[in-house]
Amino acid sequence: MLKRIHHVAFAEESGAAVVRRLQEVFGLEVESEEAAPGFVERMLPVGDCWLQALEATDDGVVRRSIATRGPGLHHVAFEVEDLPAVLDRMARHGVELIDREPRIGGGGHRIAFAHPRSFGGVLVELVETSSETDR
Amino acid sequence: MLKRIHHVAFAEESGAAVVRRLQEVFGLEVESEEAAPGFVERMLPVGDCWLQALEATDDGVVRRSIATRGPGLHHVAFEVEDLPAVLDRMARHGVELIDREPRIGGGGHRIAFAHPRSFGGVLVELVETSSETDR
Repeated sequence: MLKRIHHVAFAEESGAAVVRRLQEVFGLEVESEEAAPGFVERMLPVGDCWLQALEATDDGVVRRSIATRGPGLHHVAFEVEDLPAVLDRMARHGVELIDREPRIGGGGHRIAFAHPRSFGGVLVELVETSSETDR
Repeated sequence: MLKRIHHVAFAEESGAAVVRRLQEVFGLEVESEEAAPGFVERMLPVGDCWLQALEATDDGVVRRSIATRGPGLHHVAFEVEDLPAVLDRMARHGVELIDREPRIGGGGHRIAFAHPRSFGGVLVELVETSSETDR
């Protein structure tokens, strides 16, 4: 049902110091950069997955998460084949969904989040990409 | 330098309720289970990476982490080819290493952790496995 780990996301305050550090220390590259309300999302390829850097640039979900839990790991995203079917299955199993229907997220993919309450504090994202190589 | 994301780890209190939930909802399987001082580590394959479940069974690093940051995502582990060389490079770049030399971790692999202070709150593990298919 879960094809792979699509990305692992971390949150940091404005300045993207952690992104620069990952570039310097490990030679990682920013493959894409996308502005969203209150944050900038950057995708850094590692093998066939991505690290996703969420830089809080204004008030919003990323800054609120940093205020509550501190900066650091934010969520894990799994790639699925058929997102509506997986969401149905999750709902049947009593998972509390933040997005009951797929919505369009970074990279133009269909995404949905489950509430961290349902997975012991782990914020889970599901991603349905249009092709294997799309981020 | 980073071959891939080897695993993403989360911490939960004793009982492994989140592992059971991941099994029920997503059909994930526990490939291996290993006891360490104060916690049990379980590897759940997802694509060619793993989710690592850290169940606090007694006082120790996992329970302390839950007390400080709450349960949820704990660290991200990158696979590298030559761990001593990567640790040297990290030290030269001023990364604060928890393990200055590789030590043997779960699955018998050589591992080392960097301090989350060095990566904006993200606890980073490096793993040198003996073969591509080893966990």
